[in-house]
Amino acid sequence: VNTPVGNDAGGMNGQRAPVQPQAPVQLQALFTPRSIALVGATDKSGWSLNTWANLRVHEFDGPVYLVNPRTEVVHGQRAHRSLSGLPGPVDLAYVMVPTGAVLDVVREGADAGVRAFVILTAGFGETGPEGARREAELVAFAHERGLTVLGPNGNGYINAAAGITPYGLPIPVPLLRGPVGVVLQSGGLASAVLSFAQARNLGISLLVSVGNESLLSVTDVVGHLVDDPATRVIALFLESIRHPDEFAAVARRALAAGKPIVALKVGRSATARHTAQAHTGALTGDDAVIDSVFRRLGVARVRSLEDLIITAGVLADLTRDGLADGAGPLAGNRLGVVTPSGGASEIIADRAEDEGLELPPFGAATTEALTAMLPAFADVANPLDVTGYVVVDRTLLGRALEIVVDDPGLDAVLLLADPLRDEPADPALAQAVLAANARRIASAAKPVVVVSNALTDITPVGRKYLAETGYPAVVGGIEHGLTAIGAAARWSQARRAAATPAPAGAYPATAYPATAGPATAGPVAPDGAAGIWAEDRAAALLARYGVPVVPSQPAADEAAAVAAAGRLGYPVVVKAAGLAHKSDSGGVRLNLGDQAAVRDAFRAVQAVGGPVLIQPYRTGGIELITGVVRDPAWGLMLAVGLGGIWVEVLQDAALRPLPVSAAEIECALSELRGSAVLRGARGAPPADLTRVAEVIAGIAAVATALGDRLAALEVNPLLVRGDQVEALDALITWRD
Amino acid sequence: VNTPVGNDAGGMNGQRAPVQPQAPVQLQALFTPRSIALVGATDKSGWSLNTWANLRVHEFDGPVYLVNPRTEVVHGQRAHRSLSGLPGPVDLAYVMVPTGAVLDVVREGADAGVRAFVILTAGFGETGPEGARREAELVAFAHERGLTVLGPNGNGYINAAAGITPYGLPIPVPLLRGPVGVVLQSGGLASAVLSFAQARNLGISLLVSVGNESLLSVTDVVGHLVDDPATRVIALFLESIRHPDEFAAVARRALAAGKPIVALKVGRSATARHTAQAHTGALTGDDAVIDSVFRRLGVARVRSLEDLIITAGVLADLTRDGLADGAGPLAGNRLGVVTPSGGASEIIADRAEDEGLELPPFGAATTEALTAMLPAFADVANPLDVTGYVVVDRTLLGRALEIVVDDPGLDAVLLLADPLRDEPADPALAQAVLAANARRIASAAKPVVVVSNALTDITPVGRKYLAETGYPAVVGGIEHGLTAIGAAARWSQARRAAATPAPAGAYPATAYPATAGPATAGPVAPDGAAGIWAEDRAAALLARYGVPVVPSQPAADEAAAVAAAGRLGYPVVVKAAGLAHKSDSGGVRLNLGDQAAVRDAFRAVQAVGGPVLIQPYRTGGIELITGVVRDPAWGLMLAVGLGGIWVEVLQDAALRPLPVSAAEIECALSELRGSAVLRGARGAPPADLTRVAEVIAGIAAVATALGDRLAALEVNPLLVRGDQVEALDALITWRD
Repeated sequence: VNTPVGNDAGGMNGQRAPVQPQAPVQLQALFTPRSIALVGATDKSGWSLNTWANLRVHEFDGPVYLVNPRTEVVHGQRAHRSLSGLPGPVDLAYVMVPTGAVLDVVREGADAGVRAFVILTAGFGETGPEGARREAELVAFAHERGLTVLGPNGNGYINAAAGITPYGLPIPVPLLRGPVGVVLQSGGLASAVLSFAQARNLGISLLVSVGNESLLSVTDVVGHLVDDPATRVIALFLESIRHPDEFAAVARRALAAGKPIVALKVGRSATARHTAQAHTGALTGDDAVIDSVFRRLGVARVRSLEDLIITAGVLADLTRDGLADGAGPLAGNRLGVVTPSGGASEIIADRAEDEGLELPPFGAATTEALTAMLPAFADVANPLDVTGYVVVDRTLLGRALEIVVDDPGLDAVLLLADPLRDEPADPALAQAVLAANARRIASAAKPVVVVSNALTDITPVGRKYLAETGYPAVVGGIEHGLTAIGAAARWSQARRAAATPAPAGAYPATAYPATAGPATAGPVAPDGAAGIWAEDRAAALLARYGVPVVPSQPAADEAAAVAAAGRLGYPVVVKAAGLAHKSDSGGVRLNLGDQAAVRDAFRAVQAVGGPVLIQPYRTGGIELITGVVRDPAWGLMLAVGLGGIWVEVLQDAALRPLPVSAAEIECALSELRGSAVLRGARGAPPADLTRVAEVIAGIAAVATALGDRLAALEVNPLLVRGDQVEALDALITWRD
Repeated sequence: VNTPVGNDAGGMNGQRAPVQPQAPVQLQALFTPRSIALVGATDKSGWSLNTWANLRVHEFDGPVYLVNPRTEVVHGQRAHRSLSGLPGPVDLAYVMVPTGAVLDVVREGADAGVRAFVILTAGFGETGPEGARREAELVAFAHERGLTVLGPNGNGYINAAAGITPYGLPIPVPLLRGPVGVVLQSGGLASAVLSFAQARNLGISLLVSVGNESLLSVTDVVGHLVDDPATRVIALFLESIRHPDEFAAVARRALAAGKPIVALKVGRSATARHTAQAHTGALTGDDAVIDSVFRRLGVARVRSLEDLIITAGVLADLTRDGLADGAGPLAGNRLGVVTPSGGASEIIADRAEDEGLELPPFGAATTEALTAMLPAFADVANPLDVTGYVVVDRTLLGRALEIVVDDPGLDAVLLLADPLRDEPADPALAQAVLAANARRIASAAKPVVVVSNALTDITPVGRKYLAETGYPAVVGGIEHGLTAIGAAARWSQARRAAATPAPAGAYPATAYPATAGPATAGPVAPDGAAGIWAEDRAAALLARYGVPVVPSQPAADEAAAVAAAGRLGYPVVVKAAGLAHKSDSGGVRLNLGDQAAVRDAFRAVQAVGGPVLIQPYRTGGIELITGVVRDPAWGLMLAVGLGGIWVEVLQDAALRPLPVSAAEIECALSELRGSAVLRGARGAPPADLTRVAEVIAGIAAVATALGDRLAALEVNPLLVRGDQVEALDALITWRD
């Protein structure tokens, strides 16, 4: 199976066939067939051998028909000549025939009453125009007959919850059932994901290799998992997101349902970013857009297979008792840490800072209780090292935990404790200690996450002791464990934010809307909205919507210019305001102190062309740049940054999908590397960030209101002097 | 055992007793005793039980005497009353008695002929002044009698190579012997380190828990490991580096010997950095200094226990056949990647970029050979996905590897292949494939690193197949594997750099020298070197050493000022050049265009005080800041950055220990986030980086030459206009 690589290798070149997502009932049928036919089964194919073995080993309890027109016996069983002549009905056909024969097989199956197909065969859209044509035929036929098709060019699925495993690659044993649903755009990773999850003692509900997504997309499967009672967390491996609007919608639904999505999205590296920049514009490399969109949607982005599974496992554990509407499992990011080792606490402190987790000092009552309980030489502080005295008193760690979980200043507690790897010398003692801690954790008023020192397998012995003592999952190592806890804190925050009603006021602050639908059509673009609007029209439009814009007076001749300057007060600026890049072409004259200078400037600027505007000359303050650009995949994105070198050299911009609240913009401004400048570094008066955010929210709201025709809206500079915020220039680009 | 936390908790408050490192022969004796006494052995102590069990389980083959004056039987054995009445000689006393009794035990042991001690007991320097006094007594006695002492407050050591394991915490079985020496400042991490190494199928030579380092320091043990034939790589867990000069010396020795050091140094987080900034100065947070020093010394810094062991394992593998003088195992950072999965190749591409590894396109011959060999639908590119056709043809991956290793444009090849976890269906086939690939890897002309998809244990089955087929070590997962390969590339680079002779010319460019010894005394500070030297004296001194400084003329009165301005050319600057912060106090007047302005300015500036200098007024160009500060631990450090906001707001500075070559400074400048400004961003003429680096190297050389008395030397700004580089202001701070 040739897995497509990169953004442009998608089966349909990123174009989805014009079809609605498949109905949930069809997916349910696809994933729970009572009988399966393996079409193209042969002893010569590893895929056939694997699929057959998987169905047998994992005890699929319905009939499996092996179909091969050219032989009597396959895999030691009687083979059938075709889908049409089988002794019983077939709920799912797993198709491994050569590319050219696929459509015929599907036709024959449809005629014989088969409604669901997995197509493993490659050679479709991923190979070029000829393959794309074949794929389009297949799609058209499936639509016509209302078939459910997974693939082509996918390895199938593993329904661990139901013990149904039509999958073309080996499945490691034991296959553990559990709360994590997995969707892969690269089916070849399934073995690695399953082995790793098994080593973490973490079970899966359903794993799906989506292949070319020609009919069933990642989004469809995620939608199924959101509704699947066996699934608490959804883990994704993504190369590209083919249907951004659907993805956003289903992610919102998952967030509302309290089912976290964790995603390993590849394409961070230069080659991929290069491609992205070509179609997204300078400020918004695709990958930064993905980060910003995922954050809004509460999708936890990770960078490794280990983090994908470990983070999913922690979130599964934290959501095991369900969540109240709009609540996250972590009420905040304040973490208490209980360990038996000074070294480990320091590693944890470093990693917690990386993840934006706070380790606040313990409250007075906690400190007092710990001091009374621990040996005199213990240093009572968060992170807590209960001291090596645990070697003498094995209950020390658990008793410290019991005190720390009651600290009202903490949102969660990390307990550092390695699971058993081998049979202990004193099994009864080990069991008693584990059971006591399990009870403490179960009865704690806040989440306790147990983390081991380093990432090693949960061994069969360890698994047995954990199960016997009712102990929670043990997270694999400090490094990945802190990543997971950080992700859980951010997911909790995103869930709260999504559930918070928009503040009263002008600016929409609700969830991220579908971008391709009519929702963004808004109050429409003005007449003449085409091409590029330079300052004269763009600034006027912004002013009309209430954005503060520098005062401006048109001047038709020298006398009018002088009169305008007199009214505005010297010094002034004279601009050829109808030009898009007027500075470059000599269309701007700054800091004009008297009438003569204004007359000179008027003549020069008029010669450059277009309407002439007179404005007061501003000095001092901080220049911001605010841009709204339409990302081809994700719709309007707001980018804010400090002007000049900040954006141009440092690419120091913060992104947010629209719509966006003023509060969120304030948060974005504080993320800038140069945010100290806004807070008054280098002697400038500090900016009134609330006012700045309010103005930017207004600009963003205008962009949203301008609707589908807007390609980009840029205010550069937006001048900030304390609480005075003014747009000094603006540019709007329309699309056809 | 209470492990000290943080920088200030060191047993001796960071002050080393005035003693030379212990002689190698003494360390050899400490780590290879033929007989051991456990003093304070008792059934009531977990440490005693653990140590006794460890010596038994890991088959120490000499006598072990249990010493306890108050009981007849301990651990089921006959106990002895004291060290003086034992039936045979004792090479090592392992001391677990109460704190107050430790010195008496050591005295008694010394009298009875014991030369080496491990002191597990806590309650010394780590607990405060009283403990520090006790520790000083112990140290003094040990010096007096020439004893070798490991600890106090340490867990002992594990000599896996020799099967000698006096260690107070449980040692996981099996204890694998191998090439990695481990030194821990937190002995509590030993179990985690050993378990993890075992799960990686990686053996250790010697593991040492150093405790308070009152006699034997980390540095001493590292020195021993550099000479130890059983050790190829040294892994360190560090909380603080108590003896920077010794550490630098032994790290240089390790680099020259071709034994990589990998270090997990904690203290990256805010709390730790805060402390550091208080004593290091604004530009050089301690942690950044550590980064810069480690880089120079070729010490690979990692941030997790997983990376500590995995990176050590990769380096052990890459150095297994020895290295030529001054050569690294990787000739460069060009990596070829061979995988059976598109998804995995993309994860690898992203991670390779993080690590500064290049994945260049394959050469024409490689591409041609791969195209001929692989299925038609394969996309022949680096990283290579040989396609899922491996399911049909298991030799595909190995044959692709055989082609790729011959590509002359690659320095190393990563083969993605999971080890077996369980017995395969067809053992003979599995063995044949592994053996064939093992042969290909062994005969490859460049290093091949085998990496698994995710980090799971090497199971006993996996271990058996690897051993039987002569297969190399399999690195645990893409995430940590790429960290390790990146570290190997940087270590190779550091080793080459350390072996490269300094270029002919003025500036020293050899290895990093000891900073506390006489080597840096240099040509001494000038007369009157005390307090702060403002521009008048600092700039003159720099000019004397050949640093280009803006022309400057002193003026005693208005007439002289006007005359000087005439000679220099208008506009000029008038400065009260004897003041350290002259801008703040009104001691600088810029951009003076005529005689009247110069007269006015002279009067005003003279009123502020000190000698007055006249200089030409410079405009345009790029302002750099160059500072040399004396780090209390590591000596003189050069910091370079862009002036203004860059340093003040962004803390965008690059650090290098002195001495430093111009080439290295050019490299430091290119690391700045704002380096695009130097290359001509925003319309400025690009800086002549070679010239800039040369001038900065000159400034650094002056700082070195000024010797021990120099506290800091700052040139701010250093103005760069193309190839014109000029110091516009300077400040020197002397120390007593």
